[in-house]
Amino acid sequence: MKEQFTWIEGGGVTSARGFLASGVEAGLKASRADMAMLLSDRPCSSAALFTSNAMPAAPVIYDRELARGGHCRGVVVNVGCANAATGRAGYADCAATGKAAAAAAGIPVSQMFVCSTGTIGRRLPMDRVLAGARMAAAALKPDGGAEAARAILTTDTVPKEAAARFSVGRTEYVVGGMCKGAGMICPRLATTLIFITTDAAVAPAALKQALKTAAEKAFNRITVDGDQSTNDTCILLANGAAGGPALSPSAPGWGKFVAALSATALSLARQIVRDGEGASKFVTVAVRDAATPADALAAARAIANSPLFKAACYGGDPNWGRVICAVGNSGAKCAEAKTRIWFDDVCVFDRGKVASEQANARLADVMKQRAFEVRVSLGMGRASDAVYTSDLSHEYVNINADYTT
Amino acid sequence: MKEQFTWIEGGGVTSARGFLASGVEAGLKASRADMAMLLSDRPCSSAALFTSNAMPAAPVIYDRELARGGHCRGVVVNVGCANAATGRAGYADCAATGKAAAAAAGIPVSQMFVCSTGTIGRRLPMDRVLAGARMAAAALKPDGGAEAARAILTTDTVPKEAAARFSVGRTEYVVGGMCKGAGMICPRLATTLIFITTDAAVAPAALKQALKTAAEKAFNRITVDGDQSTNDTCILLANGAAGGPALSPSAPGWGKFVAALSATALSLARQIVRDGEGASKFVTVAVRDAATPADALAAARAIANSPLFKAACYGGDPNWGRVICAVGNSGAKCAEAKTRIWFDDVCVFDRGKVASEQANARLADVMKQRAFEVRVSLGMGRASDAVYTSDLSHEYVNINADYTT
Repeated sequence: MKEQFTWIEGGGVTSARGFLASGVEAGLKASRADMAMLLSDRPCSSAALFTSNAMPAAPVIYDRELARGGHCRGVVVNVGCANAATGRAGYADCAATGKAAAAAAGIPVSQMFVCSTGTIGRRLPMDRVLAGARMAAAALKPDGGAEAARAILTTDTVPKEAAARFSVGRTEYVVGGMCKGAGMICPRLATTLIFITTDAAVAPAALKQALKTAAEKAFNRITVDGDQSTNDTCILLANGAAGGPALSPSAPGWGKFVAALSATALSLARQIVRDGEGASKFVTVAVRDAATPADALAAARAIANSPLFKAACYGGDPNWGRVICAVGNSGAKCAEAKTRIWFDDVCVFDRGKVASEQANARLADVMKQRAFEVRVSLGMGRASDAVYTSDLSHEYVNINADYTT
Repeated sequence: MKEQFTWIEGGGVTSARGFLASGVEAGLKASRADMAMLLSDRPCSSAALFTSNAMPAAPVIYDRELARGGHCRGVVVNVGCANAATGRAGYADCAATGKAAAAAAGIPVSQMFVCSTGTIGRRLPMDRVLAGARMAAAALKPDGGAEAARAILTTDTVPKEAAARFSVGRTEYVVGGMCKGAGMICPRLATTLIFITTDAAVAPAALKQALKTAAEKAFNRITVDGDQSTNDTCILLANGAAGGPALSPSAPGWGKFVAALSATALSLARQIVRDGEGASKFVTVAVRDAATPADALAAARAIANSPLFKAACYGGDPNWGRVICAVGNSGAKCAEAKTRIWFDDVCVFDRGKVASEQANARLADVMKQRAFEVRVSLGMGRASDAVYTSDLSHEYVNINADYTT
């Protein structure tokens, strides 16, 4: 198959033409950038996915309304305070932030998304947030992607960006993205804050469908600690600045667009896991030969979410029994006599037979690596899936034992 | 209401008359007791509950068969090796252990349960296990409960025992129990290895019903890390050694029996949480005013299982937003505008209004305690439930990062 897209080294949200971004210090966090803005310099289609948490933050409630229009072209983001569990007062703070940001950026208030991330249950410091929104609008620039990517981080240790380029006929299109996320990563939703841009022209309904497809195999396949936040939001903006014909499911080039979008999403998702709170290892959990796709995913998630398995990964403890135990808890159809387990190329369990001492020794070597794959064959059918997870470390406990203090 | 039972200080499985127990060093763990036996000196009714893990250990498969008879009178237990994921060979090892233990104790093989706990995916060292079973039978004694309670421990730091006494007419009855459990504690089943005795005479069917009732509000309400093991077993033996009339749901004294059994089970369950792997705190999570009992339990479990909440408890971080977040993820019917949250007597969230700075300061004091209660009112109905959990500490990671090595 011909390559569908190529990566843009160092690319991000402003790799796509017609997008501006910025990151500024609004004083919400000590001496670092803590507010960001992203803006299309022209009208735009938009699509968004939100947390399924039943206690959504004010900005999630606010953005859900805006997303219905399908034509947002900007986002203002703050860190340090999630503006969650803040009731009507928090909603009013969010609306005021959106209004100030839209006015400063020169777009209608109904086209400016607002995203917040940080501690739950505290009010936004509005003086600083409103001033920050204005500063962010003033600082917008065509190569501001990296600054924005840095400004949206919370407990992340590195910025997360990706961008890909693909051609349809004589037109070259770009998809670029950035995200934050380190704790509270969960497989069941559009996780954390994720912003993706493209200079292709795509109608809102098709854009939403493409985003769902890409998110399903990327942000919905990662886990750090099994929790999902009140603020998770994934936004995709498409402004048509590349020129050329609009892309749609029935037009040429749609497959390439979805492939580039999916690859960008998966790259961002993997960067989130790799930078999971306290993570020292990247573990791929692949399940195959399951009776149904739901079983494959359930088994993979059960392994990836098991604190016992994750702690064993941290210590490099060749305790593969925790994989069996997690599969047995997953609800997936399974039987000891049909199950096989590998760590990379080392088979540690083969349908009721335990690993040899030799295999256990090789397993210890596999688990010493910074990245490895756990593969489980359930022997029940033909369905497969994969989930990405990190280890559970001392540093995770450190970070979460005194997050607010 | 008249007191239904009284606690027996220092009591355990041999507090009930007609029961013998022992703990011996079989060489499965370095220089400590690692096998135990429990035996009724006369015929007995028995009831048992087992893990719902779909990859049950050999002894769970073996005991399920035996439990159907309803008249087991002994248990042999080994630590160090779970005999799980060991296939047919592991089952044969289990059967051989039961045969040797029954012969040495002088009872039919069909009346001797076998329980194992330890690393998954390793074969039992049969020479030592068979010799240990014979040693354990030879060491049986009427006051051996404490020795047995010590011999069944794995990562536990203290033995767990409880016993209660109650009277019906002129007959005095005793219920006594012991258990092990520290990691892999999960709310969805009869957790870990639990052995309870009574000198009341109770028919097997009624005994099973009483055990289910007691376990539901005790072992099914605790959580350390959300995993459930391949080996979890809860066994109750009733031998009638107290004399007096048999107890049954339609006879006087049944309520007292169930109360004493439930209290013993709850005491053991709370001891398990208190000794959770690396646990430094005991946290009660109580949910009320839920729309349904299922909602109350789901919300309580979601909070109690959240690694983020548990890490905050460890650090004493007054980050109550994680409670809101967990409730929102639980699937329980809820709304920010109807939810209230207390930590002991400090209200930190009241239907959309965040806590005052003063409340946050008092919260920090509450969370410094070794034990505290989180109470959530959902404002949706009248159902309530409670779950017991521990904090997530550095020591938990230490224990599980190199369990097998």
